Amino acid sequence: MADAKYDVLGIGNAIFDVLVKADEAFLEAHGMAKGGMALIDEARAAAIYRDMGPATEMSGGSAANTIVGIASLGARAAYVGKVRDDQIGRMYAHDIRAAGVAFETRPAAGGPATGCSYILVTADGERTMNTYLGAAQDLTPADIDEGEIAAAAITYLEGYLWDPKNAKEAFVKAAAIAHGAGRQVALTLSDAFCVDRYRDEFLDLMRKRTVDLIFANEAELHSLYQTGDFDTALKQLRADAKLGVVTRSEKGCVVASPDGVIAVPAYPIEAIVDTTGAGDLFAAGFLFGVVRNAGHENAGRLGALAAAEVIQHIGARPQVSLKELAKQAGLPV
Amino acid sequence: MADAKYDVLGIGNAIFDVLVKADEAFLEAHGMAKGGMALIDEARAAAIYRDMGPATEMSGGSAANTIVGIASLGARAAYVGKVRDDQIGRMYAHDIRAAGVAFETRPAAGGPATGCSYILVTADGERTMNTYLGAAQDLTPADIDEGEIAAAAITYLEGYLWDPKNAKEAFVKAAAIAHGAGRQVALTLSDAFCVDRYRDEFLDLMRKRTVDLIFANEAELHSLYQTGDFDTALKQLRADAKLGVVTRSEKGCVVASPDGVIAVPAYPIEAIVDTTGAGDLFAAGFLFGVVRNAGHENAGRLGALAAAEVIQHIGARPQVSLKELAKQAGLPV
Repeated sequence: MADAKYDVLGIGNAIFDVLVKADEAFLEAHGMAKGGMALIDEARAAAIYRDMGPATEMSGGSAANTIVGIASLGARAAYVGKVRDDQIGRMYAHDIRAAGVAFETRPAAGGPATGCSYILVTADGERTMNTYLGAAQDLTPADIDEGEIAAAAITYLEGYLWDPKNAKEAFVKAAAIAHGAGRQVALTLSDAFCVDRYRDEFLDLMRKRTVDLIFANEAELHSLYQTGDFDTALKQLRADAKLGVVTRSEKGCVVASPDGVIAVPAYPIEAIVDTTGAGDLFAAGFLFGVVRNAGHENAGRLGALAAAEVIQHIGARPQVSLKELAKQAGLPV
Repeated sequence: MADAKYDVLGIGNAIFDVLVKADEAFLEAHGMAKGGMALIDEARAAAIYRDMGPATEMSGGSAANTIVGIASLGARAAYVGKVRDDQIGRMYAHDIRAAGVAFETRPAAGGPATGCSYILVTADGERTMNTYLGAAQDLTPADIDEGEIAAAAITYLEGYLWDPKNAKEAFVKAAAIAHGAGRQVALTLSDAFCVDRYRDEFLDLMRKRTVDLIFANEAELHSLYQTGDFDTALKQLRADAKLGVVTRSEKGCVVASPDGVIAVPAYPIEAIVDTTGAGDLFAAGFLFGVVRNAGHENAGRLGALAAAEVIQHIGARPQVSLKELAKQAGLPV
C-alpha cells in the first residue's frame, strides 16, 4: 500500500449556511422540528427566507466542516462536493481551499444554484436546519476520482448523501475504491430523520462492512435501532459496527469497539452559542486521533475539544487553529 | 411640513462584507494601509481574495449599517443604495428589509456584480477595508425618489458616495430635495483617505449648508483641516459646520455646536473584537437621539452604546435589539 497523500478525504453535500437567530415561535409557525435537518424545495426555501431576520453567511456542509476541522488540526485533507459556478459556489470553493483543503470537484455549469441551508439558532444554542440541496443533487459517481480516493488513508462519508438521487452511487463507488486500496471508510449517520429515511441501508453498510467506523449521536443511534434505551442500542451497535462512536452532548462520547466501550467526557465550555457543527467537529477531532494513532481515548478527547470550540460561536467551522488549541490542552497533535 | 414617513433615510454604497481574521504581515504583504478603506478594482479584489483565509459574509455598507442601527433602536428607517440582481444582491436586499428598513432601490439588471468589501480584522480588532464598488457605481440621480426624500425627517449621506462617478449627483439632488421640504441633511466624512480625495468639496458642503450635521472621527477631522492638533481642527469645524460630532474611539465623542462643545464618554466594553461599523453605529445612535429630541448629550450616549455593541463581535450590524440595550442602559428610546 502506497503512502497516503491525504489523511482524510471527505465526501458530502456542499452547502452554504445562512444563519440567523430565531425564537421558538418562528420554528412553530413554520412547522419545523427543532434540532433536525429538513430538506426543503425552492418554494419553501423562499418562504422561510422571506420571514427570516438578517443573516450571517458562511460555508458549511457536514463532511466539509469535518474536513476543515481536520485541516485545522494539521492533517492533510481533501473534499469532494458539488457546488454550482455561481457567486455562492465561488465563495464556497474559496473558503474550503483557504482552510487548506484540496478541493477539485468540478462545479456544475448549469442546473440548480449552490445548495443553502437556512439555519435557525434559538436562544438555547440549538440549531434547526432547512436545507435546499441545489447543486449538491448533481454529485455523481463521475465526480469520484479513483486515484484521489485510493490516496486517502480514510474516506469519510456523510449519511446525508443518501438524499440526493445519484450521490449514494458516488458513496458506494468511493467506499469500494478505498477498501480496494486497503484504506478505511468512515460514516456519520448525520441526522435522526435521515436515519429514519434510510435505516435499512445504513444497517447494511455497517453489517456488510462497507464502512469501518460509524459516528452517531444519541438520537441517531436510537432512531437506527428504534429503541429509547441507550444500552440496548449500544449493544446492537457493537454487534453491527467494526468501530462505533456515539456522541452524547454534555455527557461526552462513548467509543464502542470489539475490545470494549470507553467513555470520554465532554470538554468544559463557558456557554453554548450555536450547536451547528458540533457533531461535524467531533468527528474531525476523532478522525484526526485515528490518523495519528493516538488511541481511542485521545481521539475522543480531540473530538470533544474541537466540538467545544465550534459550539461557542456562530457557525460550523473553527475560528481558531485547532492545532494550537489541542497543543494548549496537552493533546497529541 | 407634512409629518415625516421616515425618521431617517440613508443613501450610500451598498456593499456586502467579506470578513476575515488576518495578521499584520498580510496587510504589509498586500500593501494595505491599516484602518483605512481602499478602493480596489476587480483584479486586485481577486488577488486579495485568493490569499485570504476562510471568510464570514454579511451585508454591510456604511450608511446601510447606520440605517439598520436606527431601525434596531425602533425608528422608521429607509435606505437607498445600488446592488445587482445577483445572489449577493438578493441576500443584501433580504438582510436590510429583514432589519425593518424600507429598501426600494431597483437593483441593476446588468453591469458589475454587487459591491464587496474584503475586510481584514487584525488581533487588535482594527479593520482594514478593501472595497470593490461594483454595482454601487451605478447609483444615479434617477434612483432618488423625491417623495421618499421629502418624507424623511433626516436624510443621511456618506462621504464614500463621492467615489462612484454618478452618486455625488444623487447626493446633491437628495440634499436639495430634503432642504426644499424643510428637512435636515446629515453627512459622515467616512474615511480619512476619502476626506483627502474630496477635502474641498466636503468643506464646501459644510460651508454652503448643503449638510446640517457632520460626523467625523479624529483622523477624518485632522485630514479635513490638515492639522495634527485636535483643538485647532475642532475650532475650524465649529466655524464651518452647523453641528459637528467627532468620535474619538475610547475617549468618547465631542458634540460641537454654536452653543458650545459637549464631551460624552465612550461606553465601557469587555473587549474589542472587530471595529467594523463602530462609526456607523455611533451615527445610528446619535441620529436616533436627534430624531427623538433627546438632546446632544443623550444622543452622544446612544451613539456610544450602539458603537460599543457592534465592536464586541464580528460584523458591522447589531446582533441584539439596540432598543432593548438602550432601555437596559436607562437611555431614552
